[in-house]
Amino acid sequence: MALIVQKYGGTSVGTVERIQGVANKVKGFRDQGHDVVVVVSAMSGETNRLIGMANEISHRPVPREMDVLVSTGEQVTIALLAMALSELNCPAKSYTGGQVRIHTDSSHTKARIQAIDDAKMRSDLSAGRVVIVAGFQGMDEQDNITTLGRGGSDTTAVALAAALKADECQIYTDVDGVYTTDPRVVASARRLSKITFEEMLEMASLGSKVLQIRSVEFAGKYNVPLRVLSTFEEGPGTLITTEELDSMEQPVISGIAFNRDEAKLTLLGVPDVPGVAAKILAPIGAKNIEVDMIVQNVGADQTTDFTFTVHRNDVDAAFDVLEAVSQELGAREVRKDAKICKVSVVGVGMRSHAGVASQMFETLAAEGINIQMISTSEIKISVVVDEKYLELAVRALHQAFDLALEDAS
Amino acid sequence: MALIVQKYGGTSVGTVERIQGVANKVKGFRDQGHDVVVVVSAMSGETNRLIGMANEISHRPVPREMDVLVSTGEQVTIALLAMALSELNCPAKSYTGGQVRIHTDSSHTKARIQAIDDAKMRSDLSAGRVVIVAGFQGMDEQDNITTLGRGGSDTTAVALAAALKADECQIYTDVDGVYTTDPRVVASARRLSKITFEEMLEMASLGSKVLQIRSVEFAGKYNVPLRVLSTFEEGPGTLITTEELDSMEQPVISGIAFNRDEAKLTLLGVPDVPGVAAKILAPIGAKNIEVDMIVQNVGADQTTDFTFTVHRNDVDAAFDVLEAVSQELGAREVRKDAKICKVSVVGVGMRSHAGVASQMFETLAAEGINIQMISTSEIKISVVVDEKYLELAVRALHQAFDLALEDAS
Repeated sequence: MALIVQKYGGTSVGTVERIQGVANKVKGFRDQGHDVVVVVSAMSGETNRLIGMANEISHRPVPREMDVLVSTGEQVTIALLAMALSELNCPAKSYTGGQVRIHTDSSHTKARIQAIDDAKMRSDLSAGRVVIVAGFQGMDEQDNITTLGRGGSDTTAVALAAALKADECQIYTDVDGVYTTDPRVVASARRLSKITFEEMLEMASLGSKVLQIRSVEFAGKYNVPLRVLSTFEEGPGTLITTEELDSMEQPVISGIAFNRDEAKLTLLGVPDVPGVAAKILAPIGAKNIEVDMIVQNVGADQTTDFTFTVHRNDVDAAFDVLEAVSQELGAREVRKDAKICKVSVVGVGMRSHAGVASQMFETLAAEGINIQMISTSEIKISVVVDEKYLELAVRALHQAFDLALEDAS
Repeated sequence: MALIVQKYGGTSVGTVERIQGVANKVKGFRDQGHDVVVVVSAMSGETNRLIGMANEISHRPVPREMDVLVSTGEQVTIALLAMALSELNCPAKSYTGGQVRIHTDSSHTKARIQAIDDAKMRSDLSAGRVVIVAGFQGMDEQDNITTLGRGGSDTTAVALAAALKADECQIYTDVDGVYTTDPRVVASARRLSKITFEEMLEMASLGSKVLQIRSVEFAGKYNVPLRVLSTFEEGPGTLITTEELDSMEQPVISGIAFNRDEAKLTLLGVPDVPGVAAKILAPIGAKNIEVDMIVQNVGADQTTDFTFTVHRNDVDAAFDVLEAVSQELGAREVRKDAKICKVSVVGVGMRSHAGVASQMFETLAAEGINIQMISTSEIKISVVVDEKYLELAVRALHQAFDLALEDAS
């Protein structure tokens, strides 16, 4: 007798047959006595089809109209799912983002949710109906249609779960949970039964793209228990929660994340004076280029070397900016390197265990992998290494931290 | 400097290129200084694609969800057209039926417009923007999405023109106007430059399907000048208006309409007593079968013959009903005939000209065409004849009433 918010992504609703499969799944939960709110994405391929038409018309389609266009994708799915549920004699009602009053700001194509009115949903649930909501969309103060940006359906689900104080928010996808690392890289990778929000955030931001990062932040902030499960197989999935395990059970490291999407830029021989980092990064930021890791070595001869990473797509633009900055600052040289990758060990357990960093570095050294950059947070240690070592590094670390062992829980 | 409401149908916006063509056309009107409100249909094929998915799920999809589903078709078009206009530096803003506040009743899939709030449109027009409205859809009191039924985009256009007191409502389609008859049947058929609402109604209801009948009624009621033009060729089209021409100029007959979609049913030897017509037609109506022409002959021997026409798709259902009724009434026999057609001469001029009927009957007799049923209104005479005579009858009447001659206006 719980209130559950479920989200089904584009692949899960990619055909009429799959929508009927989702309807069956939802009805199963209803039959167990649960109240269910379902958030759906556009059928897979549909959003790209719509964007394709817009791009035929304009290289920069008007954002307001882009939202009017792409929001139709989810609208089609909610209607079809409501029909499929009715066909199973399971009463259901569909709502667009605007209809269910998901109020957002007016930042078209990347709007943020400001408030949700739960009155209609509560009344449908009391009447025994399944509530179906179009993911990824809302409405601003002037009744303009807005969208939350790609992957925003996860955010919709979490926001609805928070507004309704749901017992659980279930994200159905094509994988059956969060793994210790990518099973395509390490065959012995293991599904985690639980992970904390902080760990999930680090895993997600490092390229384990099971969940949208914003939805995890949101769930953590409002303390919404989040579960990742497979649409196509039965199983408990992975629960993302605020509860930490007992320190006895807590593994030191929960997973190994990696990211091939970055590139490294270095400014050599920069004058080692206060304010130089800002002078380098301000024009990068002005070009809307996001910077990830930053390392500045201790200088010698009143000069220093300054290194940072950006998304690989931005490396040429960033290089151009640095060439100009380099002249201005009197730096010696600018270098770029796109053949790198970032590998990270993540785990709340490292808070209470010393020696994780040294174990990591020793493991890499034993494999002959040179570390180019290091960056740490309270629950994560990341290194940048040559791209060619990615699989080797991930496999060695997965083994070194005993991640293939059975989960304690 | 007029306020024009334009409606472009599914073929006119059937591809991205055609949407760009419509944008060019609309911009031309703006450049001439006119205020323009554009109503668009779904891209051709899109509505059928959506209905096809619904039918895969259910033989009787929930009407409310059907409206949520199919209304996305027009929503896609409004967004793409707004983008295309912006690309031509012609400011434009799109609205769904709900956003522009087209209030309807709650009869899903066949809703009727109750009120239109013109505030947003007026404000956009004052700001120099083209207003683009999704045809065929609205919103009921509970913010549910409704649709006006197939072809309802014409009705949307006329309703907006009435609400805005527009100078003209232009319906763009793939023909360049209303013809004296179907040019595929009579090569010398001629485009009419003007026609009255009453004539247009008779022409439309008889199968000249240029315009939705409801939109013509609506335009007549609110006195909205309606013009039918081609999207793909320049030309003045046909103006549908309340003004009758001077009787000097007024042709007696404006056009020859025909309809192959009907079938004839006859009940022979019915007792000739009061109330028998109602006893026959009540169970037909109860089956939602629409009856068009009805003829009852003067009886002999206290019995009579009762004949009526229905849509050809309904003939078998109607026949079954009649067999039951026949038993009950003690009638002699039930007959059905689907190989018939209806041919009509239409014209407000016949009000002031005697002899139209006799000229019509003589023309048909001269061709050896037997008349099976006759029905008349103030501005129309219809006959039912054997289907095989359709082309012959239409050509002979077109010639007899001099319709190939140049229009006087």
